[in-house]
Amino acid sequence: MRLARVVGQVVSTAKVPELSGTTILVVEDIAPESDGESGRYAAVDLVGAGQDEVVLVVSGSAARVDQATTGVPVDQAIVAIADTIVTHGEVTYSK
Amino acid sequence: MRLARVVGQVVSTAKVPELSGTTILVVEDIAPESDGESGRYAAVDLVGAGQDEVVLVVSGSAARVDQATTGVPVDQAIVAIADTIVTHGEVTYSK
Amino acid sequence: MRLARVVGQVVSTAKVPELSGTTILVVEDIAPESDGESGRYAAVDLVGAGQDEVVLVVSGSAARVDQATTGVPVDQAIVAIADTIVTHGEVTYSK
Amino acid sequence: MRLARVVGQVVSTAKVPELSGTTILVVEDIAPESDGESGRYAAVDLVGAGQDEVVLVVSGSAARVDQATTGVPVDQAIVAIADTIVTHGEVTYSK
Amino acid sequence: MRLARVVGQVVSTAKVPELSGTTILVVEDIAPESDGESGRYAAVDLVGAGQDEVVLVVSGSAARVDQATTGVPVDQAIVAIADTIVTHGEVTYSK
Repeated sequence: MRLARVVGQVVSTAKVPELSGTTILVVEDIAPESDGESGRYAAVDLVGAGQDEVVLVVSGSAARVDQATTGVPVDQAIVAIADTIVTHGEVTYSK
Repeated sequence: MRLARVVGQVVSTAKVPELSGTTILVVEDIAPESDGESGRYAAVDLVGAGQDEVVLVVSGSAARVDQATTGVPVDQAIVAIADTIVTHGEVTYSK
Repeated sequence: MRLARVVGQVVSTAKVPELSGTTILVVEDIAPESDGESGRYAAVDLVGAGQDEVVLVVSGSAARVDQATTGVPVDQAIVAIADTIVTHGEVTYSK
Repeated sequence: MRLARVVGQVVSTAKVPELSGTTILVVEDIAPESDGESGRYAAVDLVGAGQDEVVLVVSGSAARVDQATTGVPVDQAIVAIADTIVTHGEVTYSK
Repeated sequence: MRLARVVGQVVSTAKVPELSGTTILVVEDIAPESDGESGRYAAVDLVGAGQDEVVLVVSGSAARVDQATTGVPVDQAIVAIADTIVTHGEVTYSK
């Protein structure tokens, strides 16, 4: 799962009908996944995440396992809000 | 979901039969995706997106959840047109 | 879908039985998908693509949607040959 | 499968219900999967991996094949702890 | 499919039960993959590949299509050993 921070939201009226009623947030990877460019992308919110909160994002078919997104054409979903992240024995993030 | 801009179209006559009748647009990521993809690729259009519009693109099996692409060998689909994108409290894109 | 050019072929005798009878071409992304090294990989050919032709490649389970690859362990397939690609209003590729 | 090292843990109370009872560890690729930043991400632990242990991580739907994660919205899971890794005829890692 | 070379093996005793009896090799991409992955990872071997052989590796659910890996939590599998690879009209690899 990607570790990311909520940085914003996408508003869209013209969309496939199954997306109606979903909240689509803009998130940015906090642990740089690859070559420097911080990954910014959109994910459907399943847990009511707030601005700047650090979240767990699942990608692919995992985004449609929860009841709320079954049959919805999404490929990234926020499934948890991190309280704390411990790395190398230290608390590197605390809500 | 990837945030991308419509930059063009692919026209193809020699294709698997299931692709007949689909519109395949060329899109470019506006927020450089983290996984290395500099981000110009083709996606089937499900919402009638226009040139230069910013769209939400789903990848993988999510591209075949909508009725229009069930059983069609596609792995990226445009599922929404963004009206506005807010990041860090500011409107960073408005249609 | 990835936009790629056919650059060669892989010949293999020792393979899982389901791959027998498939044509496996070597393709290279034309739109530099990553930050320098153009992506070169192998894809099963579903449309009789020829050397140097520009093609649409699907990845993941999409590669097994077509009848010819159902039940075959492949994760990339050529599903169309591009006639023309238009980007920013200009024909950037014509067969 | 990704070769990664356990570097920490994510604690979260606000999460989709299916995630309750899972242990989510932070892992870092030991073989730099990307060409710059080492990949750091979260994976559900299926084998009781300990801090600094080198593990095998599966991604995508493979993370939900095991009984413990069937129906759970996860896309990365630790499925084995490496005892030894041999590369180019040499033991490059031993537990 | 990824074009990769067998460079070693992973030995693991603590693993999910479904992995018992599988051979897990370490492979390295010979053609730098486009999506940023610099490419050393582990894949289950379905064809008895030997050290330094060039192989075809499938990723994602394709790794579980073969009978030997159905129901096994793996996301990369070696499905063929390359005899020859021809690119731009020249034999660039021969076993």
